[in-house]
Amino acid sequence: MENIIREGDDVLLYLDKRRSYLVRIERQKRIHTHKGFIDLTGLIGREFGTRIHSNKGVEFIAFKPTIRDYIFKISRRTQIIYPKDISLIVFFSGIEPGSRVVEGGTGAGALTAALASYVRPSGKVYSYEIRREFLEVAAENLRRIGMIDYVELKNRDLTEGIEERDVDAVILDMATPWLVVPHAYEALRGSGAFVSFSPTVDQVVKTVEALRQYGFAGIETFESMFRGMQIERGRTRPETLMTGHTGYITVARKALK
Amino acid sequence: MENIIREGDDVLLYLDKRRSYLVRIERQKRIHTHKGFIDLTGLIGREFGTRIHSNKGVEFIAFKPTIRDYIFKISRRTQIIYPKDISLIVFFSGIEPGSRVVEGGTGAGALTAALASYVRPSGKVYSYEIRREFLEVAAENLRRIGMIDYVELKNRDLTEGIEERDVDAVILDMATPWLVVPHAYEALRGSGAFVSFSPTVDQVVKTVEALRQYGFAGIETFESMFRGMQIERGRTRPETLMTGHTGYITVARKALK
Amino acid sequence: MENIIREGDDVLLYLDKRRSYLVRIERQKRIHTHKGFIDLTGLIGREFGTRIHSNKGVEFIAFKPTIRDYIFKISRRTQIIYPKDISLIVFFSGIEPGSRVVEGGTGAGALTAALASYVRPSGKVYSYEIRREFLEVAAENLRRIGMIDYVELKNRDLTEGIEERDVDAVILDMATPWLVVPHAYEALRGSGAFVSFSPTVDQVVKTVEALRQYGFAGIETFESMFRGMQIERGRTRPETLMTGHTGYITVARKALK
Amino acid sequence: MENIIREGDDVLLYLDKRRSYLVRIERQKRIHTHKGFIDLTGLIGREFGTRIHSNKGVEFIAFKPTIRDYIFKISRRTQIIYPKDISLIVFFSGIEPGSRVVEGGTGAGALTAALASYVRPSGKVYSYEIRREFLEVAAENLRRIGMIDYVELKNRDLTEGIEERDVDAVILDMATPWLVVPHAYEALRGSGAFVSFSPTVDQVVKTVEALRQYGFAGIETFESMFRGMQIERGRTRPETLMTGHTGYITVARKALK
Repeated sequence: MENIIREGDDVLLYLDKRRSYLVRIERQKRIHTHKGFIDLTGLIGREFGTRIHSNKGVEFIAFKPTIRDYIFKISRRTQIIYPKDISLIVFFSGIEPGSRVVEGGTGAGALTAALASYVRPSGKVYSYEIRREFLEVAAENLRRIGMIDYVELKNRDLTEGIEERDVDAVILDMATPWLVVPHAYEALRGSGAFVSFSPTVDQVVKTVEALRQYGFAGIETFESMFRGMQIERGRTRPETLMTGHTGYITVARKALK
Repeated sequence: MENIIREGDDVLLYLDKRRSYLVRIERQKRIHTHKGFIDLTGLIGREFGTRIHSNKGVEFIAFKPTIRDYIFKISRRTQIIYPKDISLIVFFSGIEPGSRVVEGGTGAGALTAALASYVRPSGKVYSYEIRREFLEVAAENLRRIGMIDYVELKNRDLTEGIEERDVDAVILDMATPWLVVPHAYEALRGSGAFVSFSPTVDQVVKTVEALRQYGFAGIETFESMFRGMQIERGRTRPETLMTGHTGYITVARKALK
Repeated sequence: MENIIREGDDVLLYLDKRRSYLVRIERQKRIHTHKGFIDLTGLIGREFGTRIHSNKGVEFIAFKPTIRDYIFKISRRTQIIYPKDISLIVFFSGIEPGSRVVEGGTGAGALTAALASYVRPSGKVYSYEIRREFLEVAAENLRRIGMIDYVELKNRDLTEGIEERDVDAVILDMATPWLVVPHAYEALRGSGAFVSFSPTVDQVVKTVEALRQYGFAGIETFESMFRGMQIERGRTRPETLMTGHTGYITVARKALK
Repeated sequence: MENIIREGDDVLLYLDKRRSYLVRIERQKRIHTHKGFIDLTGLIGREFGTRIHSNKGVEFIAFKPTIRDYIFKISRRTQIIYPKDISLIVFFSGIEPGSRVVEGGTGAGALTAALASYVRPSGKVYSYEIRREFLEVAAENLRRIGMIDYVELKNRDLTEGIEERDVDAVILDMATPWLVVPHAYEALRGSGAFVSFSPTVDQVVKTVEALRQYGFAGIETFESMFRGMQIERGRTRPETLMTGHTGYITVARKALK
């Protein structure tokens, strides 16, 4: 993959862990920060990872944005799904290049982008969302991240049915996942994965009961806790700030009747 | 993807969360379990996810093994890297189909298989291991999982240098990751990712200090804790058994000088 | 307090974190361990904290047992309430020397001993237990720990009523705490504390609903997780073994109608 | 214990989990809150736990403050030691009514108050603090909480020596606990407890090394994590906000030479 910054590319201008700017490179464009402005023209033709200074002499690094960077920026504007959860959802779903995945709901497209990134180029994410205004946001985000070609956005209600068949995984981040369980059973190939993310215990109980009833097996629910470390010789310690809970992840596989 | 069980395929015979058997399908082969034996011939031509009974009438489900299943089976025989950590390593490394990744050490090939699974078909994992006996185990595991074509196994010491250039990520699960930091800097493309997994605080401190010294940025260290839930209406609770600590994950990106 | 070992005293013979022996000092008595036997006569007249060697030359330390040591030994023989939970229960209950406390169920008397230890000499623990066989075990344990004088053991069912009035705290470690809520309200002085320990989410929900219904305020539920550290310069790390869940603690205070 | 509100008593005016007011009862005094003012005269002669309304008709509950309430109010103005840690420190130190305890540093007296509350009436807390301005704050706090009689405040540097002998516990919440270890050994009775609270790994490593060198045994280090639950039928879940780290607790006991 080419590693040179071109016009039209996105760049993550990184100052420190808490401050970074996701910008599109255009000629004659300046980006204004608390630490002065940066002339983006100067980045064109340079390699990703290059250092650049604001007019106030503060150094930024022009990183190539990863899916995680995009998700972080997306999530600041809408509801949040954390990298710690996305990574587990992806891994436990067993998806890989070529997989066909049903997702619901799309939201702003953060999880969608991560899924698309792993199933491309031959796979596909069929992403359901009933709120039309979210679909537009998601489409824009996916276009920017370069994942739109691997996603089919659908303005439909997943609790009323899934149109696809023989899919490899059904992945849910929605309020009533248990209502989708029978449809997921129909849509999945044998041995295919069901994965659901829910904040409350009650959602999990209803979902697991539905999974048992409809013939899923290998049902597991778990949560992950994520804690940062402050690494400084002589003063190393876990960070004080921590998110105590995001949601539970439930996984299962379709067993044939 | 085809979903029919053929001779030569691997199948996960699933009994419950704690008991499952990873077997290769052969004609006339029987697999013996605590719950009786299962005649594998009967599975040929059936769909993955099918139910099969042992001669004692106990039901098993013939799941298609995922990378996670393989890793779980591999890890029982050697040292352990947990799915919770693999998933974070993969996601934070930013790898995707087509990525070129340097890994060390190979060990039994568990993390290698996960990495290969996401970079294929056009990407590659260059996996370094100094212990020749491990390389043989890893090669066998990767062959079985179907990932060997996307991996180049190298019987070399990563602390003495990396042969590849412009790689997208360097991923380490070894005793002295800080010794690899200067080589990782040479091998990575600008903005490329460094990821290291280490059990002790002292390893992390040394690694982070080396990263700062050699011009990496976006350095973060964290750990994740993973807790299962027992879901049963009227008796729902977190599980008593939990692994308290596996290791810290440190991530960083190459900033150009 | 006197710090000399006398006949009849209990001593904790400490070998390491995992191996210690709680013994009563008697003349001519030998205690047999995996590391040889120890002649207890030699300890009489010595100070607590003294070192003593087994006939095989292995060193033990003769510690004065704390409530925590007793509880640890008790809990190995029956169900478990952990120090991490006992300490929170005691502190959040607001008990102090002189407090009058209702407890149920007694079990083997572990939590009872801790409560008695803090309310003595002028306070009292009224401990309810329906299983007569447990009461006998508890009485024996409390006698040994020296707490029996501060406890009134009652072979009664707490769900049928509390006989005491104007108590400072009602503390529950039993299967159906919500059935005790109305009785606790009657028994407590205004502003008095209700504390309940329960393993499942469902127990907690029922209990909190009962507390709201009966006029309690300041209702909070929480859990604590406890993780040991392995401290060794160059190899410091959290311990692998950890108990993932023991129970939730719910606290509340009586608001007058 | 009397449960009637008198002039000069402290009362916790409780609105909800996040809003409460610790006030001293005086005739003709009004307390102003965001929900209107409350005339404290009306509380005199009423029982603790009584409900009272502000002039805007909002209901408050007049709870009797516990040590935990006082500590919470104290800690908002200075550095923080959490109830979860105080409770473990108290329990693992093995203190009880009558214990003699050395503490350092005093800070604003939060932990001091908790210790005094459990050792009274016959025990004593000898609390060392080098910063004279803190001692004054602590004295005022302890007077208000009613614990001053059980505490001897000392404007001395604990790293230079401990004046007391044969104490039951030495309890430290200070920057350099390892410098106190040899003095703690001198001051403690055989089998007495050393307890130290420290935020960083490096402090813990130095302290544990000193403990090993000076003849302590039963050395353990741990941390506790505390997570609130939101209990609401149909929407029960762990709370999002959580403190990720406060400090490590190290405990040990004096073994004689």
